[in-house]
Amino acid sequence: MEKIKVGIIGATGYAGEELVRLLYQHPQAQLVSLASHSYAGQPYSGIYPNYREIQDVLCDPEDIEPLAEKADVIFLALPHGLASSKVTAQILEQCKVIDLGADFRLQDVSVYEKWYKVPHEGKEILPQAVYGLCEWNRDAIRKTSLVANPGCYTTCSILTLSPLVAEGAIQLDSIIIDAKSGVSGAGRSVKLDNHFAEVNESIKAYGVGTHRHTPEIEEQLSYRAGVPVYLTFTPHLVPMQRGILAVCYATLTEKYSWEDLHTIYEEYYGKERFIRLLPQNTYPETRWVKGSNYCDIGWKIDERTNRVIAIGAIDNLVKGAAGQAIQNMNLMFDLPEDMGIGQVPMFP
Amino acid sequence: MEKIKVGIIGATGYAGEELVRLLYQHPQAQLVSLASHSYAGQPYSGIYPNYREIQDVLCDPEDIEPLAEKADVIFLALPHGLASSKVTAQILEQCKVIDLGADFRLQDVSVYEKWYKVPHEGKEILPQAVYGLCEWNRDAIRKTSLVANPGCYTTCSILTLSPLVAEGAIQLDSIIIDAKSGVSGAGRSVKLDNHFAEVNESIKAYGVGTHRHTPEIEEQLSYRAGVPVYLTFTPHLVPMQRGILAVCYATLTEKYSWEDLHTIYEEYYGKERFIRLLPQNTYPETRWVKGSNYCDIGWKIDERTNRVIAIGAIDNLVKGAAGQAIQNMNLMFDLPEDMGIGQVPMFP
Amino acid sequence: MEKIKVGIIGATGYAGEELVRLLYQHPQAQLVSLASHSYAGQPYSGIYPNYREIQDVLCDPEDIEPLAEKADVIFLALPHGLASSKVTAQILEQCKVIDLGADFRLQDVSVYEKWYKVPHEGKEILPQAVYGLCEWNRDAIRKTSLVANPGCYTTCSILTLSPLVAEGAIQLDSIIIDAKSGVSGAGRSVKLDNHFAEVNESIKAYGVGTHRHTPEIEEQLSYRAGVPVYLTFTPHLVPMQRGILAVCYATLTEKYSWEDLHTIYEEYYGKERFIRLLPQNTYPETRWVKGSNYCDIGWKIDERTNRVIAIGAIDNLVKGAAGQAIQNMNLMFDLPEDMGIGQVPMFP
Amino acid sequence: MEKIKVGIIGATGYAGEELVRLLYQHPQAQLVSLASHSYAGQPYSGIYPNYREIQDVLCDPEDIEPLAEKADVIFLALPHGLASSKVTAQILEQCKVIDLGADFRLQDVSVYEKWYKVPHEGKEILPQAVYGLCEWNRDAIRKTSLVANPGCYTTCSILTLSPLVAEGAIQLDSIIIDAKSGVSGAGRSVKLDNHFAEVNESIKAYGVGTHRHTPEIEEQLSYRAGVPVYLTFTPHLVPMQRGILAVCYATLTEKYSWEDLHTIYEEYYGKERFIRLLPQNTYPETRWVKGSNYCDIGWKIDERTNRVIAIGAIDNLVKGAAGQAIQNMNLMFDLPEDMGIGQVPMFP
Repeated sequence: MEKIKVGIIGATGYAGEELVRLLYQHPQAQLVSLASHSYAGQPYSGIYPNYREIQDVLCDPEDIEPLAEKADVIFLALPHGLASSKVTAQILEQCKVIDLGADFRLQDVSVYEKWYKVPHEGKEILPQAVYGLCEWNRDAIRKTSLVANPGCYTTCSILTLSPLVAEGAIQLDSIIIDAKSGVSGAGRSVKLDNHFAEVNESIKAYGVGTHRHTPEIEEQLSYRAGVPVYLTFTPHLVPMQRGILAVCYATLTEKYSWEDLHTIYEEYYGKERFIRLLPQNTYPETRWVKGSNYCDIGWKIDERTNRVIAIGAIDNLVKGAAGQAIQNMNLMFDLPEDMGIGQVPMFP
Repeated sequence: MEKIKVGIIGATGYAGEELVRLLYQHPQAQLVSLASHSYAGQPYSGIYPNYREIQDVLCDPEDIEPLAEKADVIFLALPHGLASSKVTAQILEQCKVIDLGADFRLQDVSVYEKWYKVPHEGKEILPQAVYGLCEWNRDAIRKTSLVANPGCYTTCSILTLSPLVAEGAIQLDSIIIDAKSGVSGAGRSVKLDNHFAEVNESIKAYGVGTHRHTPEIEEQLSYRAGVPVYLTFTPHLVPMQRGILAVCYATLTEKYSWEDLHTIYEEYYGKERFIRLLPQNTYPETRWVKGSNYCDIGWKIDERTNRVIAIGAIDNLVKGAAGQAIQNMNLMFDLPEDMGIGQVPMFP
Repeated sequence: MEKIKVGIIGATGYAGEELVRLLYQHPQAQLVSLASHSYAGQPYSGIYPNYREIQDVLCDPEDIEPLAEKADVIFLALPHGLASSKVTAQILEQCKVIDLGADFRLQDVSVYEKWYKVPHEGKEILPQAVYGLCEWNRDAIRKTSLVANPGCYTTCSILTLSPLVAEGAIQLDSIIIDAKSGVSGAGRSVKLDNHFAEVNESIKAYGVGTHRHTPEIEEQLSYRAGVPVYLTFTPHLVPMQRGILAVCYATLTEKYSWEDLHTIYEEYYGKERFIRLLPQNTYPETRWVKGSNYCDIGWKIDERTNRVIAIGAIDNLVKGAAGQAIQNMNLMFDLPEDMGIGQVPMFP
Repeated sequence: MEKIKVGIIGATGYAGEELVRLLYQHPQAQLVSLASHSYAGQPYSGIYPNYREIQDVLCDPEDIEPLAEKADVIFLALPHGLASSKVTAQILEQCKVIDLGADFRLQDVSVYEKWYKVPHEGKEILPQAVYGLCEWNRDAIRKTSLVANPGCYTTCSILTLSPLVAEGAIQLDSIIIDAKSGVSGAGRSVKLDNHFAEVNESIKAYGVGTHRHTPEIEEQLSYRAGVPVYLTFTPHLVPMQRGILAVCYATLTEKYSWEDLHTIYEEYYGKERFIRLLPQNTYPETRWVKGSNYCDIGWKIDERTNRVIAIGAIDNLVKGAAGQAIQNMNLMFDLPEDMGIGQVPMFP
């Protein structure tokens, strides 16, 4: 079989770099272009010296048209607002597109424009976009040319909560998500907030009540519920490289035992390659999924308050970004879903 | 004025060591005994080499009787179940006692025995114990001989939530506390869970639905509310040395603005030396209180869900343990409340 | 081709666990036994939950005889002194052995016994052992049944210094190695020295003048030099998971330019798959080799003192342990040398 | 006694901020101006929120003239090249100056200009400058108006090596210093090199053979030796907030025992308040000096190579910057040398 020709626009951010790493080792992918706004013309291994003697190619400028002519699929790993101005109906006729940014994740344009505070530049093609959460939208992903790859916090939160919402096990107005992320989630941008001595030895909440992953989680959970869902989402910055832990609180709609919820989770995820349901009294820790495409999920019934505490853990750069994007690519090209992303988590 | 003679039982744990550090520099305290179960007979500076040439004294065994004869106040920093068997009515006639452990924190013995799964050994003197949260129990602390110094998570959580509970601003059955702690909170005990390579580069929840600080927070908030309070509390381990961040979620009883809550907080804490109320859209970070006795508090109204997210931050070893214990000592001996604990937070 | 049947004795230490990770993904290896002294009878994924649904097999006891009957190769990852009592001439007739411990690394038994302070239990088979530094002993490794896999510090130090020693570019009595390691190098043993709060936010030298990797480096460099070499070696503990940086100082025997030394390095390593020579004024950093089998090498001529500062970096668990062990296995079984260990370094 | 009026120019870098912290708590100092190039006009506690309710004063612009009129002493914590253009003979007639930068540390202007690659702007007043290494230049410091506060690496290196050099115990051409620093030593400047995800989980050497602290160490050791000293100095970046470990290698001029060197060290440092000589087989670790003005020193005789490995540890922001600067101030104002800087090291 001929290899899939792959281009990456935004290849020098952390998500882009993780794409390069995984695709380089993917048996059916061939990297044809690493494009970068800031580093065009420079060797990739000069920007990321882990690629010395592996990927010494020069970075291309971020021009999507010429790339669409030679690539079978383009991954976009760009700040919000850029993908929607680059991707056009014509591009989508030439090649498939997997966007790791936010532009095509929200189907409701008004919600996008309210939370992102910019006009949406790609309204015409937005309806073609499929939300690339493979475990829930597998069939649609297989058929589309445009995948909106979910955000990192959102992947972890939605995977953890969806079965409970779909089965009506939790009260929809009671959902609170307290999520924690490693620093790579903040990207490679150079600012005081990312300085080692400012981040290390501290923890903080940020974007309290205003983080843009909130409407994304809400929209997806609304599909599960059939009615609009509004929830509270609080992200935190943790002094570590990788990993997201989403701790989700909700009031149960009736009495449920741990086993009851296990039955629900098992029904949805029992056969999922990348979701691991943990035994009772065991909870996810980010170290056990690092470097892998797994999402670990565990839960506890707090009988005293009739709440469930459901916890999910992923590697933000893999299942929360590049790994899931490749999972989407595999689906779009009829490859085994886990091809190239079956790595065992790396510990320690 | 003659200095206060101070003994510490359990001086070689992290809380004990922080007591030594702060009391050594306290203008009115004189350390007369550093007692340790594991290290009796060894020089203190051999166990903690930061004390070389500062505290080379040998550790005493943990015998409370002889210590009670020579000390004006004894600090106990012991695993739960030990303090209640050591402190007796007779000891309390000889000297004051400040217990940093859990044994005298819960006035309801049945709750203690349920959560700690051991019989309470000090039932007779328990009623004398005053919960040493200075900002709320100042007068009682001044008059007692036995202070139960609050736990680290509990100090941060109770300080953050108390004004809202006391003023009826939040629904009592809606409280969820998602708290995060540095590793010193786990103590100096040697076990795989504390191994650097197991803790570093990961975050996890633990004691989910079962952590023993839960009933302590509930009991204190019940005093504020006048009725029993039950809540959900989830602690987390964060790869850093010090610091606790308590993120508290609750549904508001009616519409409140940020300013409304500021008025409430200001009423209770406006004149407190060790509580800092942050400006709007600013939230506590543990780095800004490290090494100090401050508790920083900030909050956000999530209008979409009518919840408040109230966040507190402390240094678990200072305001969450040794610093607050000395604040209690200062009150018990009619000293300025901030004597010896007014350090500026150390950053970075 | 039938897969190689592989057994691991000592599978639950960090090096053993890394072997499991890499071998599980090796296209020609089949794990037939994971043996553990402490955890025999327990599921592997209970000890290392990153292996949930991947390696749920129960651990075997550490009996080498039955394993030798069913395995083609046995990896030993044990504390020193154990391998030499397990491996016998008979075992070596049944299967190949790759020992990640120290017992077969030093050909001079008296040196072993002096530095390790125990009698050597395997003197008879010691002469069969080949020091498994692939880049230098490739042919002998291909032919032997017993490989002594080099230590982590030693791999990095010897690879960095060998060309300079072999070419007579440095004075043999002037060599000083100042090496730094991540904490996984200390193993998973539970002791105060490995406690997060003791290791984090600090750096220390240890084993100063007495570390057991010293004679191993000396013996190997002596082979390069043709005469005995004695040097100073100082290891350090750095608060990070993985990685070794070996900074080697030596006086040059005559005037050399950077390019001169590049010519020397290029001669020895120019075609090596796993050694990367860095450009001038660029130096290795452990982050660029993490999770990979690469050894990066860079150097500087300090003209003012006529010294060279030659620096090497590896991942201690990969090139410094499990990766190199598999590189040896590949050689012993006539497989492509990089099979299963060609991972791109994972960053961040 | 009236308090000393203190101004700080460059108060918003890490060294400046540590000055504020220590001086705020100094019993004889009164801060009269916090000057900052970048943040003039902004409240200090907005830039460093640990100072909320402690130092809410607005930052001044960095004008030295008006400050010299109201201050008794000015601390300068500026990038190199700035102090020498600000400090004039006239300023020095008005007030004392303690410069934490490099401009007045090297008495040989040509060496300064060679290593710093800028012309020296303060040649006229340079001869007045006293190198503020209190343990060696105490008397001169007492009499001068201009102190050049030593660099962080240099303080640690010079203190560790000076007695051995002064006593002729080591060969002058054999000195190699391998030093390691926490990230605060890199300052608060915003650049990719300081990004958490780039620094964390890695170690690197930098400025190999070219670091500007090299000539500073050489000049001071030359004073000890009476002849010029040239040495090799390699700094490293370690993923931690604070701390410097200087590991110094040198060949002994004859046979020395550990005790012999102890006698030498004791002679020079036996009565020094801030230098702690460690017992045999014990070596400095940065955690034991964190937050304090101590320099811990230990050493090992490597008999096999007749070298000494002498190791020093300091907190780079205290003894390596702000603490030592205040020690200098105390000397200049005839205060007890340890006033305000006698803090017990903070651990963990």
